[in-house]
Amino acid sequence: MSTIFYHSPASRSETVAAAIAEMDVGNRIETRIVTIPRQDGSGGRDPDNPHPEGKVPVLVHDGRMIWERPAILTFLSELFPEAPAVCPPGHPERGPFLSWLAYYGDVVEPVVICQAAGISHDWLYAAIRGPEEVFQRLAGTLEDGRPYLLECGFTTADLLMASPFLYFPDLVPDMPAVRDWVARVGARDQRNAAEVGASA
Amino acid sequence: MSTIFYHSPASRSETVAAAIAEMDVGNRIETRIVTIPRQDGSGGRDPDNPHPEGKVPVLVHDGRMIWERPAILTFLSELFPEAPAVCPPGHPERGPFLSWLAYYGDVVEPVVICQAAGISHDWLYAAIRGPEEVFQRLAGTLEDGRPYLLECGFTTADLLMASPFLYFPDLVPDMPAVRDWVARVGARDQRNAAEVGASA
Repeated sequence: MSTIFYHSPASRSETVAAAIAEMDVGNRIETRIVTIPRQDGSGGRDPDNPHPEGKVPVLVHDGRMIWERPAILTFLSELFPEAPAVCPPGHPERGPFLSWLAYYGDVVEPVVICQAAGISHDWLYAAIRGPEEVFQRLAGTLEDGRPYLLECGFTTADLLMASPFLYFPDLVPDMPAVRDWVARVGARDQRNAAEVGASA
Repeated sequence: MSTIFYHSPASRSETVAAAIAEMDVGNRIETRIVTIPRQDGSGGRDPDNPHPEGKVPVLVHDGRMIWERPAILTFLSELFPEAPAVCPPGHPERGPFLSWLAYYGDVVEPVVICQAAGISHDWLYAAIRGPEEVFQRLAGTLEDGRPYLLECGFTTADLLMASPFLYFPDLVPDMPAVRDWVARVGARDQRNAAEVGASA
Protein backbone atom coordinates (compact mmCIF):
# COMPACT_ATOMS: atom_id res chain seq x y z
CA MET A 1 0.00 0.00 0.00
CA SER A 2 1.40 3.37 -1.01
CA THR A 3 -0.11 6.72 -0.06
CA ILE A 4 1.47 10.01 -1.15
CA PHE A 5 0.26 13.41 0.08
CA TYR A 6 1.11 16.45 -2.07
CA HIS A 7 1.34 19.42 0.25
CA SER A 8 2.17 23.09 -0.02
CA PRO A 9 2.63 24.92 3.29
CA ALA A 10 0.32 27.90 3.99
CA SER A 11 -2.39 26.64 1.64
CA ARG A 12 -5.56 24.55 1.75
CA SER A 13 -3.43 21.44 2.16
CA GLU A 14 -2.58 22.53 5.73
CA THR A 15 -5.95 21.04 6.71
CA VAL A 16 -4.83 17.62 5.50
CA ALA A 17 -1.41 18.02 7.14
CA ALA A 18 -3.17 18.80 10.43
CA ALA A 19 -5.53 15.85 9.95
CA ILE A 20 -2.61 13.48 9.38
CA ALA A 21 -0.99 14.80 12.57
CA GLU A 22 -4.22 14.50 14.62
CA MET A 23 -4.79 10.99 13.26
CA ASP A 24 -1.17 10.14 14.08
CA VAL A 25 -0.63 8.47 10.71
CA GLY A 26 2.30 10.55 9.44
CA ASN A 27 4.48 7.45 9.39
CA ARG A 28 2.01 5.67 7.05
CA ILE A 29 1.93 8.43 4.42
CA GLU A 30 4.70 9.96 2.31
CA THR A 31 4.41 13.76 2.23
CA ARG A 32 5.83 15.55 -0.82
CA ILE A 33 6.14 19.33 -0.78
CA VAL A 34 5.16 21.04 -4.04
CA THR A 35 4.82 24.65 -5.12
CA ILE A 36 1.55 26.35 -6.11
CA PRO A 37 0.82 29.76 -7.66
CA ARG A 38 0.50 32.30 -4.83
CA GLN A 39 -1.71 35.39 -4.68
CA ASP A 40 1.38 37.62 -4.60
CA GLY A 41 2.62 36.18 -7.90
CA SER A 42 5.28 33.98 -6.35
CA GLY A 43 5.38 30.19 -6.64
CA GLY A 44 3.84 28.42 -9.64
CA ARG A 45 2.48 25.11 -10.77
CA ASP A 46 4.70 22.23 -9.84
CA PRO A 47 5.33 19.59 -12.54
CA ASP A 48 5.54 16.98 -9.78
CA ASN A 49 1.96 17.69 -8.66
CA PRO A 50 -0.45 15.30 -10.45
CA HIS A 51 -3.50 17.59 -10.01
CA PRO A 52 -4.59 18.67 -13.52
CA GLU A 53 -4.96 22.30 -12.36
CA GLY A 54 -1.95 22.29 -10.06
CA LYS A 55 -4.01 22.57 -6.86
CA VAL A 56 -3.27 21.06 -3.46
CA PRO A 57 -4.07 18.96 -1.49
CA VAL A 58 -3.83 15.80 -3.54
CA LEU A 59 -3.54 12.25 -2.28
CA VAL A 60 -2.37 9.43 -4.51
CA HIS A 61 -3.26 6.03 -3.11
CA ASP A 62 -2.08 2.91 -4.95
CA GLY A 63 -1.74 4.99 -8.11
CA ARG A 64 -5.17 6.66 -8.02
CA MET A 65 -5.62 10.39 -7.43
CA ILE A 66 -7.94 11.68 -4.71
CA TRP A 67 -8.63 15.41 -4.72
CA GLU A 68 -10.82 17.92 -2.81
CA ARG A 69 -10.47 18.13 0.96
CA PRO A 70 -13.82 16.51 1.88
CA ALA A 71 -12.93 13.49 -0.27
CA ILE A 72 -9.39 13.24 1.12
CA LEU A 73 -10.57 13.47 4.74
CA THR A 74 -13.30 10.88 4.07
CA PHE A 75 -10.80 8.58 2.39
CA LEU A 76 -8.30 8.89 5.27
CA SER A 77 -11.09 8.04 7.74
CA GLU A 78 -11.61 4.77 5.83
CA LEU A 79 -7.95 3.99 5.33
CA PHE A 80 -7.25 4.42 9.04
CA PRO A 81 -10.55 3.61 10.77
CA GLU A 82 -8.83 3.03 14.13
CA ALA A 83 -7.18 6.46 14.13
CA PRO A 84 -8.32 9.16 16.55
CA ALA A 85 -10.30 12.18 15.29
CA VAL A 86 -12.41 10.36 12.68
CA CYS A 87 -15.84 8.73 12.46
CA PRO A 88 -15.20 5.77 10.14
CA PRO A 89 -17.94 3.86 8.27
CA GLY A 90 -20.34 2.29 10.76
CA HIS A 91 -19.67 4.91 13.48
CA PRO A 92 -22.96 6.25 14.92
CA GLU A 93 -21.98 9.78 13.85
CA ARG A 94 -20.66 8.80 10.41
CA GLY A 95 -23.54 10.59 8.65
CA PRO A 96 -23.05 13.93 10.44
CA PHE A 97 -19.25 13.62 10.00
CA LEU A 98 -19.68 13.24 6.22
CA SER A 99 -22.26 16.04 6.22
CA TRP A 100 -20.00 18.60 7.89
CA LEU A 101 -17.21 17.75 5.41
CA ALA A 102 -19.56 18.17 2.43
CA TYR A 103 -21.24 21.25 3.90
CA TYR A 104 -17.85 22.93 4.16
CA GLY A 105 -17.14 22.55 0.45
CA ASP A 106 -20.69 23.01 -0.82
CA VAL A 107 -21.66 26.00 1.31
CA VAL A 108 -19.07 27.42 3.70
CA GLU A 109 -16.21 27.97 1.27
CA PRO A 110 -18.26 29.63 -1.51
CA VAL A 111 -20.06 31.75 1.12
CA VAL A 112 -16.77 32.86 2.68
CA ILE A 113 -15.17 33.67 -0.68
CA CYS A 114 -18.22 35.61 -1.89
CA GLN A 115 -18.38 37.50 1.42
CA ALA A 116 -14.69 38.42 1.20
CA ALA A 117 -15.04 39.45 -2.46
CA GLY A 118 -18.18 41.48 -1.81
CA ILE A 119 -20.30 39.32 -4.14
CA SER A 120 -23.99 38.78 -3.50
CA HIS A 121 -26.69 37.55 -5.85
CA ASP A 122 -30.21 36.17 -5.37
CA TRP A 123 -29.34 32.93 -7.16
CA LEU A 124 -26.30 32.33 -5.00
CA TYR A 125 -28.39 32.93 -1.90
CA ALA A 126 -31.21 30.69 -3.15
CA ALA A 127 -28.82 27.85 -3.97
CA ILE A 128 -26.16 28.16 -1.29
CA ARG A 129 -27.37 30.62 1.38
CA GLY A 130 -25.15 33.19 3.12
CA PRO A 131 -22.92 33.90 6.13
CA GLU A 132 -25.83 34.33 8.52
CA GLU A 133 -27.10 30.80 7.88
CA VAL A 134 -23.58 29.36 8.22
CA PHE A 135 -23.02 31.06 11.56
CA GLN A 136 -26.47 30.15 12.85
CA ARG A 137 -25.79 26.54 11.97
CA LEU A 138 -22.47 26.60 13.82
CA ALA A 139 -23.91 28.41 16.82
CA GLY A 140 -26.92 26.11 16.94
CA THR A 141 -24.60 23.10 17.03
CA LEU A 142 -22.08 24.47 19.53
CA GLU A 143 -24.33 26.40 21.89
CA ASP A 144 -25.53 23.32 23.70
CA GLY A 145 -22.10 23.30 25.36
CA ARG A 146 -20.36 20.68 23.26
CA PRO A 147 -16.74 21.66 22.50
CA TYR A 148 -16.67 20.36 18.92
CA LEU A 149 -19.14 19.80 16.09
CA LEU A 150 -19.78 16.14 16.79
CA GLU A 151 -20.97 14.57 20.03
CA CYS A 152 -18.03 12.15 20.03
CA GLY A 153 -15.53 15.02 20.35
CA PHE A 154 -12.87 16.50 18.10
CA THR A 155 -12.69 15.22 14.52
CA THR A 156 -11.07 16.24 11.27
CA ALA A 157 -14.45 17.79 10.34
CA ASP A 158 -13.64 20.51 12.91
CA LEU A 159 -10.32 21.13 11.14
CA LEU A 160 -12.01 21.62 7.78
CA MET A 161 -14.95 23.67 9.06
CA ALA A 162 -12.67 25.98 11.08
CA SER A 163 -10.04 26.31 8.35
CA PRO A 164 -11.16 29.64 6.77
CA PHE A 165 -11.63 31.24 10.19
CA LEU A 166 -8.12 30.27 11.25
CA TYR A 167 -6.73 31.98 8.16
CA PHE A 168 -9.04 35.01 8.24
CA PRO A 169 -9.85 35.78 11.89
CA ASP A 170 -11.88 38.83 10.83
CA LEU A 171 -14.51 36.45 9.47
CA VAL A 172 -15.23 35.00 12.91
CA PRO A 173 -18.63 36.29 14.06
CA ASP A 174 -19.22 37.84 17.46
CA MET A 175 -20.82 34.66 18.80
CA PRO A 176 -19.05 33.30 21.89
CA ALA A 177 -19.71 29.63 21.13
CA VAL A 178 -18.34 29.98 17.59
CA ARG A 179 -15.39 32.16 18.61
CA ASP A 180 -14.39 29.72 21.37
CA TRP A 181 -14.66 26.76 18.99
CA VAL A 182 -12.39 28.44 16.41
CA ALA A 183 -9.86 29.21 19.18
CA ARG A 184 -10.05 25.62 20.45
CA VAL A 185 -9.40 24.16 16.98
CA GLY A 186 -6.67 26.74 16.33
CA ALA A 187 -4.85 25.82 19.54
CA ARG A 188 -4.73 22.16 18.47
CA ASP A 189 -3.57 23.19 15.04
CA GLN A 190 -0.70 25.28 16.39
CA ARG A 191 0.42 22.46 18.64
CA ASN A 192 0.40 20.04 15.72
CA ALA A 193 2.26 22.42 13.46
CA ALA A 194 4.98 22.68 16.11
CA GLU A 195 5.16 18.89 16.42
CA VAL A 196 5.34 18.36 12.67
CA GLY A 197 7.97 21.08 12.40
CA ALA A 198 10.01 19.44 15.15
CA SER A 199 10.00 16.06 13.44
CA ALA A 200 10.67 17.39 9.93
CA MET B 1 -32.53 0.37 11.12
CA SER B 2 -34.62 3.28 9.92
CA THR B 3 -33.73 5.50 6.97
CA ILE B 4 -36.00 8.35 5.86
CA PHE B 5 -35.39 10.37 2.69
CA TYR B 6 -36.97 13.84 2.50
CA HIS B 7 -37.62 14.58 -1.15
CA SER B 8 -39.17 17.36 -3.19
CA PRO B 9 -39.74 16.54 -6.88
CA ALA B 10 -38.02 18.80 -9.46
CA SER B 11 -35.28 19.88 -7.04
CA ARG B 12 -31.76 18.86 -6.01
CA SER B 13 -33.21 15.84 -4.23
CA GLU B 14 -34.00 14.24 -7.62
CA THR B 15 -30.34 13.16 -7.68
CA VAL B 16 -30.86 11.13 -4.52
CA ALA B 17 -34.17 9.73 -5.80
CA ALA B 18 -32.37 8.60 -8.96
CA ALA B 19 -29.51 7.15 -6.90
CA ILE B 20 -31.95 5.15 -4.77
CA ALA B 21 -33.56 3.81 -7.96
CA GLU B 22 -30.19 2.94 -9.58
CA MET B 23 -29.05 1.26 -6.36
CA ASP B 24 -32.38 -0.60 -6.20
CA VAL B 25 -32.81 0.14 -2.50
CA GLY B 26 -36.16 1.93 -2.63
CA ASN B 27 -37.70 -0.78 -0.48
CA ARG B 28 -35.12 -0.18 2.28
CA ILE B 29 -35.75 3.57 2.58
CA GLU B 30 -38.90 5.51 3.43
CA THR B 31 -39.37 8.48 1.09
CA ARG B 32 -41.32 11.46 2.42
CA ILE B 33 -42.36 14.22 0.03
CA VAL B 34 -41.97 17.75 1.43
CA THR B 35 -42.43 21.23 -0.03
CA ILE B 36 -39.62 23.76 -0.56
CA PRO B 37 -39.69 27.44 -1.56
CA ARG B 38 -39.67 27.63 -5.39
CA GLN B 39 -38.10 30.30 -7.59
CA ASP B 40 -41.56 31.32 -8.85
CA GLY B 41 -42.73 32.07 -5.29
CA SER B 42 -44.80 28.91 -4.91
CA GLY B 43 -44.14 26.23 -2.33
CA GLY B 44 -42.52 27.08 1.01
CA ARG B 45 -40.61 25.57 3.88
CA ASP B 46 -42.17 22.38 5.13
CA PRO B 47 -42.45 21.98 8.92
CA ASP B 48 -41.97 18.23 8.46
CA ASN B 49 -38.51 18.76 6.89
CA PRO B 50 -35.81 18.54 9.61
CA HIS B 51 -33.24 20.59 7.61
CA PRO B 52 -32.65 23.84 9.56
CA GLU B 53 -32.89 25.90 6.36
CA GLY B 54 -35.68 23.86 4.80
CA LYS B 55 -33.49 22.47 2.02
CA VAL B 56 -33.68 19.04 0.37
CA PRO B 57 -32.37 16.39 0.11
CA VAL B 58 -32.11 15.24 3.70
CA LEU B 59 -31.61 11.73 4.97
CA VAL B 60 -32.35 10.77 8.56
CA HIS B 61 -30.73 7.50 9.54
CA ASP B 62 -31.41 6.09 13.01
CA GLY B 63 -32.36 9.57 14.18
CA ARG B 64 -29.33 11.43 12.82
CA MET B 65 -29.58 13.96 9.99
CA ILE B 66 -27.37 13.68 6.91
CA TRP B 67 -27.43 16.63 4.52
CA GLU B 68 -25.65 17.76 1.31
CA ARG B 69 -25.75 15.47 -1.71
CA PRO B 70 -22.09 14.33 -1.64
CA ALA B 71 -22.53 13.24 1.99
CA ILE B 72 -25.85 11.47 1.31
CA LEU B 73 -24.48 9.60 -1.72
CA THR B 74 -21.35 8.61 0.23
CA PHE B 75 -23.47 7.44 3.16
CA LEU B 76 -25.76 5.39 0.91
CA SER B 77 -22.70 3.73 -0.66
CA GLU B 78 -21.67 2.58 2.83
CA LEU B 79 -25.14 1.59 3.97
CA PHE B 80 -25.66 -0.57 0.86
CA PRO B 81 -22.13 -1.63 -0.20
CA GLU B 82 -23.48 -4.48 -2.33
CA ALA B 83 -25.78 -2.23 -4.36
CA PRO B 84 -25.01 -1.50 -8.02
CA ALA B 85 -23.75 1.95 -9.06
CA VAL B 86 -21.52 2.62 -6.05
CA CYS B 87 -17.86 2.23 -5.08
CA PRO B 88 -18.07 1.32 -1.38
CA PRO B 89 -15.14 1.59 1.08
CA GLY B 90 -12.32 -0.68 -0.04
CA HIS B 91 -13.29 -0.55 -3.74
CA PRO B 92 -10.24 0.20 -5.94
CA GLU B 93 -11.96 3.34 -7.25
CA ARG B 94 -13.31 4.50 -3.88
CA GLY B 95 -10.97 7.52 -3.84
CA PRO B 96 -11.97 8.81 -7.30
CA PHE B 97 -15.66 8.11 -6.49
CA LEU B 98 -15.43 10.28 -3.35
CA SER B 99 -13.45 12.89 -5.30
CA TRP B 100 -16.06 13.33 -8.04
CA LEU B 101 -18.78 13.70 -5.40
CA ALA B 102 -16.78 16.34 -3.51
CA TYR B 103 -15.63 18.08 -6.71
CA TYR B 104 -19.25 18.51 -7.73
CA GLY B 105 -20.15 20.40 -4.56
CA ASP B 106 -16.84 22.25 -4.11
CA VAL B 107 -16.33 23.36 -7.71
CA VAL B 108 -18.97 22.42 -10.29
CA GLU B 109 -22.05 23.79 -8.54
CA PRO B 110 -20.57 27.19 -7.59
CA VAL B 111 -19.03 27.49 -11.07
CA VAL B 112 -22.37 26.72 -12.75
CA ILE B 113 -24.34 29.12 -10.53
CA CYS B 114 -21.81 31.93 -11.05
CA GLN B 115 -21.79 31.32 -14.80
CA ALA B 116 -25.61 31.42 -14.96
CA ALA B 117 -25.73 34.55 -12.78
CA GLY B 118 -22.97 36.29 -14.77
CA ILE B 119 -20.67 36.54 -11.76
CA SER B 120 -16.90 36.45 -12.16
CA HIS B 121 -14.17 37.53 -9.77
CA ASP B 122 -10.44 36.89 -9.52
CA TRP B 123 -10.77 35.43 -6.04
CA LEU B 124 -13.49 33.00 -7.14
CA TYR B 125 -11.33 31.91 -10.04
CA ALA B 126 -8.22 31.57 -7.87
CA ALA B 127 -10.06 29.48 -5.29
CA ILE B 128 -12.53 27.50 -7.36
CA ARG B 129 -11.65 27.89 -11.07
CA GLY B 130 -14.19 28.31 -13.87
CA PRO B 131 -16.32 26.53 -16.49
CA GLU B 132 -13.38 25.91 -18.82
CA GLU B 133 -11.48 23.91 -16.20
CA VAL B 134 -14.61 21.92 -15.31
CA PHE B 135 -15.26 20.99 -18.93
CA GLN B 136 -11.62 20.19 -19.59
CA ARG B 137 -11.65 17.89 -16.60
CA LEU B 138 -14.78 16.12 -17.84
CA ALA B 139 -13.52 15.87 -21.41
CA GLY B 140 -10.09 14.66 -20.24
CA THR B 141 -11.78 11.88 -18.27
CA LEU B 142 -14.33 10.84 -20.90
CA GLU B 143 -12.33 11.26 -24.09
CA ASP B 144 -10.42 8.03 -23.62
CA GLY B 145 -13.67 6.32 -24.66
CA ARG B 146 -15.00 5.30 -21.30
CA PRO B 147 -18.79 5.81 -21.07
CA TYR B 148 -18.86 7.07 -17.47
CA LEU B 149 -16.54 8.92 -15.09
CA LEU B 150 -15.15 5.83 -13.37
CA GLU B 151 -13.45 2.86 -14.98
CA CYS B 152 -15.85 0.46 -13.25
CA GLY B 153 -18.83 1.93 -15.12
CA PHE B 154 -21.88 3.94 -14.14
CA THR B 155 -22.07 5.19 -10.55
CA THR B 156 -24.08 7.68 -8.55
CA ALA B 157 -21.14 10.09 -9.05
CA ASP B 158 -22.28 10.37 -12.70
CA LEU B 159 -25.78 11.30 -11.50
CA LEU B 160 -24.45 14.12 -9.30
CA MET B 161 -21.89 15.41 -11.80
CA ALA B 162 -24.44 15.44 -14.65
CA SER B 163 -27.27 16.90 -12.57
CA PRO B 164 -26.93 20.60 -13.51
CA PHE B 165 -26.53 19.76 -17.20
CA LEU B 166 -29.71 17.66 -17.16
CA TYR B 167 -31.63 20.65 -15.75
CA PHE B 168 -29.95 23.32 -17.87
CA PRO B 169 -29.04 21.76 -21.24
CA ASP B 170 -27.72 25.13 -22.48
CA LEU B 171 -24.78 24.70 -20.11
CA VAL B 172 -23.53 21.59 -21.92
CA PRO B 173 -20.40 22.50 -23.86
CA ASP B 174 -19.88 21.64 -27.51
CA MET B 175 -17.61 18.74 -26.66
CA PRO B 176 -18.86 15.42 -28.07
CA ALA B 177 -17.55 13.26 -25.21
CA VAL B 178 -19.20 15.48 -22.60
CA ARG B 179 -22.44 15.90 -24.56
CA ASP B 180 -22.75 12.13 -25.09
CA TRP B 181 -22.08 11.45 -21.41
CA VAL B 182 -24.81 13.90 -20.32
CA ALA B 183 -27.24 12.23 -22.76
CA ARG B 184 -26.26 8.78 -21.51
CA VAL B 185 -26.86 9.72 -17.85
CA GLY B 186 -30.07 11.54 -18.78
CA ALA B 187 -31.45 8.48 -20.56
CA ARG B 188 -30.95 6.36 -17.41
CA ASP B 189 -32.53 9.08 -15.31
CA GLN B 190 -35.66 9.22 -17.49
CA ARG B 191 -36.03 5.47 -17.38
CA ASN B 192 -35.74 5.48 -13.60
CA ALA B 193 -38.21 8.33 -13.21
CA ALA B 194 -40.72 6.33 -15.25
CA GLU B 195 -40.14 3.24 -13.11
CA VAL B 196 -40.49 5.13 -9.85
CA GLY B 197 -43.62 6.83 -11.16
CA ALA B 198 -45.11 3.49 -12.17
CA SER B 199 -44.55 1.98 -8.74
CA ALA B 200 -45.72 5.02 -6.76
